[in-house]
Amino acid sequence: MTETTETTAGISQNDDVAAVIAAKADRARKAARVLAQADRDWKDRAITAIAETLDANRPAIIAGNGRDLERGRENGTSEALLDRLRLDDQRVDGLISSLEDLRGLPDPVGEVMRGETLPNGLRLRQIHVPIGVVGAIYEARPNVTVDIAGLALKSGNAVLLRGGSAAEESNKVLIGLIREALESVGLPPDTVQGIDELGRPGATALMGARGKVDLLIPRGGRNLIQAVVNNATVPVIETGEGNVHLFLDASAPDELAVPIIVNAKTHRTSVCNAAETLLIHKDAAAARGVLEGLSEAGVRLHVDERAADLAQGLNTVPATDEDWSTEYLDLDIAVAVVDSLDAALDHIRQYSTGHTEAIVTNDLANSERFIREIDSAAVIVNASTRFTDGGQLGLGAEVGISTQKMHARGPMGLRELTTTKWIVQGDGHIRS
Amino acid sequence: MTETTETTAGISQNDDVAAVIAAKADRARKAARVLAQADRDWKDRAITAIAETLDANRPAIIAGNGRDLERGRENGTSEALLDRLRLDDQRVDGLISSLEDLRGLPDPVGEVMRGETLPNGLRLRQIHVPIGVVGAIYEARPNVTVDIAGLALKSGNAVLLRGGSAAEESNKVLIGLIREALESVGLPPDTVQGIDELGRPGATALMGARGKVDLLIPRGGRNLIQAVVNNATVPVIETGEGNVHLFLDASAPDELAVPIIVNAKTHRTSVCNAAETLLIHKDAAAARGVLEGLSEAGVRLHVDERAADLAQGLNTVPATDEDWSTEYLDLDIAVAVVDSLDAALDHIRQYSTGHTEAIVTNDLANSERFIREIDSAAVIVNASTRFTDGGQLGLGAEVGISTQKMHARGPMGLRELTTTKWIVQGDGHIRS
Repeated sequence: MTETTETTAGISQNDDVAAVIAAKADRARKAARVLAQADRDWKDRAITAIAETLDANRPAIIAGNGRDLERGRENGTSEALLDRLRLDDQRVDGLISSLEDLRGLPDPVGEVMRGETLPNGLRLRQIHVPIGVVGAIYEARPNVTVDIAGLALKSGNAVLLRGGSAAEESNKVLIGLIREALESVGLPPDTVQGIDELGRPGATALMGARGKVDLLIPRGGRNLIQAVVNNATVPVIETGEGNVHLFLDASAPDELAVPIIVNAKTHRTSVCNAAETLLIHKDAAAARGVLEGLSEAGVRLHVDERAADLAQGLNTVPATDEDWSTEYLDLDIAVAVVDSLDAALDHIRQYSTGHTEAIVTNDLANSERFIREIDSAAVIVNASTRFTDGGQLGLGAEVGISTQKMHARGPMGLRELTTTKWIVQGDGHIRS
Repeated sequence: MTETTETTAGISQNDDVAAVIAAKADRARKAARVLAQADRDWKDRAITAIAETLDANRPAIIAGNGRDLERGRENGTSEALLDRLRLDDQRVDGLISSLEDLRGLPDPVGEVMRGETLPNGLRLRQIHVPIGVVGAIYEARPNVTVDIAGLALKSGNAVLLRGGSAAEESNKVLIGLIREALESVGLPPDTVQGIDELGRPGATALMGARGKVDLLIPRGGRNLIQAVVNNATVPVIETGEGNVHLFLDASAPDELAVPIIVNAKTHRTSVCNAAETLLIHKDAAAARGVLEGLSEAGVRLHVDERAADLAQGLNTVPATDEDWSTEYLDLDIAVAVVDSLDAALDHIRQYSTGHTEAIVTNDLANSERFIREIDSAAVIVNASTRFTDGGQLGLGAEVGISTQKMHARGPMGLRELTTTKWIVQGDGHIRS
C-alpha cells in the first residue's frame, strides 16, 4: 500500500506516467525474453505454482475482494456489477480449474506453420513465436486477471494488466500471488505486472506505448473497446461485440429449428455468442413453432409487422429501428420476416457486427450460399450460435473473440497470442 | 479530366472529402462482395485482360507518365526520384510479366487453414477469405499501382489507391486501363479505385475510414510509414524498414563468410533486405577476408575502434553512434567488433528494426542460439540476407515486407492479404 501511494503521489504529469509505463514495459520485455526461451515444462510448472499459490491464499484473495465489494457498495454499484466483481471460494475453485485446463493445452511456441526445402537447397521454416509484451485493459472482473496472465504465460508473453479501479484491491492481491508463484519456479515475476495504481492516465499511457507494447487487448463493453480503438497507437484486437443473427429458412422442420434457436437465444443470454435477431423466411414451416418455443422459454419477441402476425398471442412488443442493431444480452430477440435468403443476407450485411451468424435449413444450396456470402468470424449451419467459443471449437481457453479481420478472427486461443518468424538455413547461399 | 476537376472543386471541407472516401469505400465493398465469390479462373482472366490492356495502351501510359516527369523536372525533382517515377517500354514489359507471374500463383481464397470433426460430430473448418477493402498509400512509383491492384484482385479484395501527386497522371492512366480490363471480363471496375484527385485530405480521410476500409498498407520511406501509423484509425501493416545485421562468428571460414557478407551488402543496396551493420566476433577467422572483400566491392566501412585495427589500409571512416541505427541503402556498412555472441545479440536487440538478421558460423550451438534468441521477421543462417523476399521464399509476388508482429510478419504474399472464417456445420447441435 505504501509503495503504491508513493508512486501515485510522485506522478504529477502524464509524461511521468508514460515514463513509468515505459519502464514497466522495458522490464516486461526483459521477462519476455526469458519466457520466450522457456520450454513447455517450465511454463506448466509455473501454471501449477500459480494454482497452488491461489489455493493456499484464499483468505487474502477473498479479503482483498471484500474491500472492492465494500467500496463498490458505498459508491452505489449495481448488484449485477457487484456479482461480476465477487470472488468467493467457489469462484477461486473456478480460477484454479481453468489453470489446470490451461496446463493441459499444447504449447503454441515453436509450432511450424509452414516449411520446405527450396530447389536451391535453402531450408525454410515459419514458426510460431511469442508476440512479446501484451497489454490488457478490462473492467471489474478479477477472474480476467488470472485468465489473461495464464494465457500470456503459456504462450510465452509478458503482460501489463489494467483491471480498472473497481477491482483494484482484488487484482493487486492476485497479481502479487502470481508474481510470487513465478518467482518460486525461477521465472521472472515481471512476466505479470499490474498498472492499476497509475489510474486512468496509466491506461492512456499504455495505449500510447507503441514500440514498447506489441499488442493491446481490450475486454469489456462496447464503450471500453471503442475508447481503446480510438486512442491506441499500439495495435489493438477488438473483441466481443456480437449482434448475432439466426436465419430460419423455409425448409427447416420444427424438430431441427426449435431446439437450435431456443438454445442460441436462451442458453446463456449475457454472452456475445447469444442470438439477438431472428430472421424468418416468409414460408418457413417452423416459424410458429420457433416463436412459441422462444416465448415459452421466457423470451420477449420484438416483432416487425409480419412477424407480429405469426406471433399472435405470444409475448411480443413492436420492433423499432433500433432493435435491429441492439445486442440485448437478455431474454429479448428482434424478429423480422424476410422474403428470401437474399433479403436475409442484406439484412445481416447491414446490421451484423461480424461475430457469428447461423442458418437453420434443410436446403443444401441455401446453406452453401450462406456459408460463402456471410462475412463473419463464424458461420454456422444447423447448430447453436453458442458454439463460437474457444473451448467449444477445441482451441482450449480463449483471450476473447475477435470481431476484426487482422491477425485473428473469432475465438483467440494460445496460438493467436503468437506471431511468426521465418528461419532460413543455407550453406553459403547467395543471390545472383 | 472534367469529372475529376469538378469533384475537386466541389470539395471545400475535410468532411466532404471524408464523405467522398466513404462513398468510394462503399462502392469498393460492393465490388469486394462480387470478387469474394469469383473463382480463380475468373480472377486470372481479369489479370490476363489487365496485362493485355496495358500492352495495347503503351503510348497512353508513357504519355501520362511523361506529363508527370515533365512536372517533376519543372519542380526540380532529383534524377533518382525521376528514375523511380519513369515508365518506358521496358518497364511496361516488367509490369506485364509480373502480372503473368501472378496469374500462375495459387488462389489463397478457400484454402483450409485447419479443420476437424469434433467428438460431438460438429464439422469445423477455418478457411481463408478475402479481407474486403484494402487501402494503399505509396509514393512516386507507378509500378506499385499495378502490383497492388493485381495482388488485391487475385486475393479477392477491392483496393483504394493513393499513389501520390508526383505520379498522379501515370496512376490515372493505369487505373483507368485496369478498370476497363475488369469490366471487359465482367468484374466490377470499382475493384480498383484511385483517390489521388482528393489530394492529401483524401489520404487523411482514407486513414480515418475505420469500419469502411479494413486494412491500410503504406509503402515507401520511413516518414510516410510513420505518418500513416500515427494518424490511421484503420488497421495498418508497417512494411519495409530494415536495419539488417550480419554477425560473423569466430568459426566461419573465409570461403563461407566472404561471399555471403559481400552479397548481403552489395547485391542490391537500395532495398530493405540489404545488410547495414556487420558485427565481427573478436576471434573471427574470416574478419580480414570479409573486410577486404567488402572494400574491394566498393563498400565504405564505418568502423568502431577495434574494427579500425582490422581494417587498416581499407576504405574506412570512423563510426559514430548514429551509424548503428542507420539504414544506408548504399555502399556503406557499419562495422563493430564484439566479444561474444551475447554481445552481438545485445547490439542487435538495441538497434534492429526486426526485419532480418543473419549469422555466418560453423558452430551449431551458436547457430541454434541465434535462431532462438533473435526476434525478427527472418533469421538467417549461412545465407545472404537478400533472401528475405516473397519471390525468393516461394510466396510469389509480395505486397511488402512486414516488420510488425500482428497479422503478418515478413514477406506478405497473397495469403497475407486474406483473413479467416470459421465454418461450423452441425445436425441440430445445441449446448447443454
